[in-house]
Amino acid sequence: MLPTIEWNDEGVVMIDQRKLPGAEVYVTCKSPKEVARAIKTMVIRGAPAIGVAAAMGLALGVRSSKATGTQKLATEFYRVCEVMAATRPTAVNLFWAIDRMKRVFAESAGAGQSVDQIKVRLESEARMIHDEDVASCRAMGAHGATLVPETARVLTHCNAGALATAGYGTALGVIRGAVELGKKVVVMADETRPFLQGARLTAWELTRDGIDTTVITDNMSGAIMRAGEIDLVVVGADRIAANGDVANKIGTYTVAVLAKEHGIPFYVAAPISTIDLATPDGSTIPIEERNAREVTHVGPTRITPAAAHVRNPAFDVTPNRYVTAIITERGIARAPYFVSLKDLVTLEP
Amino acid sequence: MLPTIEWNDEGVVMIDQRKLPGAEVYVTCKSPKEVARAIKTMVIRGAPAIGVAAAMGLALGVRSSKATGTQKLATEFYRVCEVMAATRPTAVNLFWAIDRMKRVFAESAGAGQSVDQIKVRLESEARMIHDEDVASCRAMGAHGATLVPETARVLTHCNAGALATAGYGTALGVIRGAVELGKKVVVMADETRPFLQGARLTAWELTRDGIDTTVITDNMSGAIMRAGEIDLVVVGADRIAANGDVANKIGTYTVAVLAKEHGIPFYVAAPISTIDLATPDGSTIPIEERNAREVTHVGPTRITPAAAHVRNPAFDVTPNRYVTAIITERGIARAPYFVSLKDLVTLEP
Repeated sequence: MLPTIEWNDEGVVMIDQRKLPGAEVYVTCKSPKEVARAIKTMVIRGAPAIGVAAAMGLALGVRSSKATGTQKLATEFYRVCEVMAATRPTAVNLFWAIDRMKRVFAESAGAGQSVDQIKVRLESEARMIHDEDVASCRAMGAHGATLVPETARVLTHCNAGALATAGYGTALGVIRGAVELGKKVVVMADETRPFLQGARLTAWELTRDGIDTTVITDNMSGAIMRAGEIDLVVVGADRIAANGDVANKIGTYTVAVLAKEHGIPFYVAAPISTIDLATPDGSTIPIEERNAREVTHVGPTRITPAAAHVRNPAFDVTPNRYVTAIITERGIARAPYFVSLKDLVTLEP
Repeated sequence: MLPTIEWNDEGVVMIDQRKLPGAEVYVTCKSPKEVARAIKTMVIRGAPAIGVAAAMGLALGVRSSKATGTQKLATEFYRVCEVMAATRPTAVNLFWAIDRMKRVFAESAGAGQSVDQIKVRLESEARMIHDEDVASCRAMGAHGATLVPETARVLTHCNAGALATAGYGTALGVIRGAVELGKKVVVMADETRPFLQGARLTAWELTRDGIDTTVITDNMSGAIMRAGEIDLVVVGADRIAANGDVANKIGTYTVAVLAKEHGIPFYVAAPISTIDLATPDGSTIPIEERNAREVTHVGPTRITPAAAHVRNPAFDVTPNRYVTAIITERGIARAPYFVSLKDLVTLEP
């Protein structure tokens, strides 16, 4: 399986997603600051993968600490938590992972564990978050696969794949799950400007698995749906509000509107850690505005004149009425989501 | 005014639209084959501009002919017409211009004019097509400007500007017309992958005129409409069927669906020469599929893995039910279009 992110003796190893598909380069982050920078600059991206990276970054911070007392270690740990939380605002998995690590730290410290014991405990928790993420992607894949027809042409946006998670993927996990059941699936991947996660990452990881993949520019999906060439849409999510509104990569909303217009099911696949019951609806989800250069340039090529302004919201919100179902590792939620999502979140795992 | 295409003693001069906005390079085509190649490779593009280029290319062919008799000249002329007609299939203005030049040739030859007289006559007709195109853009601008509120945030797709015409533009002509009336207009330009006509050309020519322009990636328009930041959409057209279905740059259909979903008026601006009453509806408009490289690369940068397929339809069809009005140089057509368009086309100019 594709190693998106791994913990080893030297630090946290990630495949550099900015360089794919041209080059397969692995980066080792040896400090939490390096992990934070990797998240911010999108060496690693994708809500679940960001959560895993943050947890590993926190474990790394504690591991490399020179603190001899728990109090000192705690001060350092909480400072690193702040650095990590400031990397990207939209994906809630980041905050979920930080909170989980904080809880474990507090428990260990509260139980009177030594500095060395806390280090081991946090490393173990970060590895657990990693492994659970793979497991939940596989479970999502199994649930979601039941929604895929025997022969299916699936449109996806951005990359909600192995590269966006600890492995296997959320939306692409659903596709992999369907393929594992012997279903005949071909994929249309929106290229997903400006960062081109669809063209660069989704196409790379799916064709690597032998899944038939066609890249289209983002503005082709309407015409291709109208031509009757798409049976279902499946995308990931960066944050799902309590009412089922979905924040995901910019352009997701457009795809959802098009799917509705053409009577095509629009599915969202995401782990429980992406559901944020504390956010009542999509209107309060913070949307990151990224650097203009992502829009003005592709590689070294400048594509806009200097006199033009540029916008670069990295995410948009799809209101729940466009979402046919939300696929999680604990099952499939349908409207009304404020009931079904709460039920899934509070379900004993 | 921006010189998109000009006739001079050496041949047909065009600004190379592949190189904008990085460089302002002018190309002189000295033979009809060079003009045909310029159309095919998109040195010049935009339905009205293609029509003008084709007419000038035909005049150029006749001018450079060594034929001493009308019969020989006619044989050569009709061969050049075929070369020109084979350049691009969707924009009907190409065929309209060729037909018009053929008609003039037949008239002149039928009236017993000499080879030299025919040469002069065809050159004059090509210049007339050029000048009429500018005039019709200005008329379109005046009609369309009445539809623009005093303060307006306008979304446009691709480039239906001075660069897509002999000057002034169709959709951008409407914007220029509104600005000339003193209306406060700001423009959002979809970047328009894969050829990036919005990012490269629309942003360049509008900011050059001092019009406030913001470039967005194609997948942002949905979110920006939902945020209430767009008052109207105006686009050009490559061919309008008798029933009002509109073929235009890929992605136009998506914008039209989004506009409808948000209750935003969706206007199409095009000259009468873009209306093809011989095409009953959009289903029979040929859609050009262009080279995959336009999608797989931006400049020298490869963005898709080699194993992935790619689609590159250059146009899509927007059904008439999404079109609020069609703005022509003779006035504004509204549904039912099969009546209103026929009325405009048959109107004495």
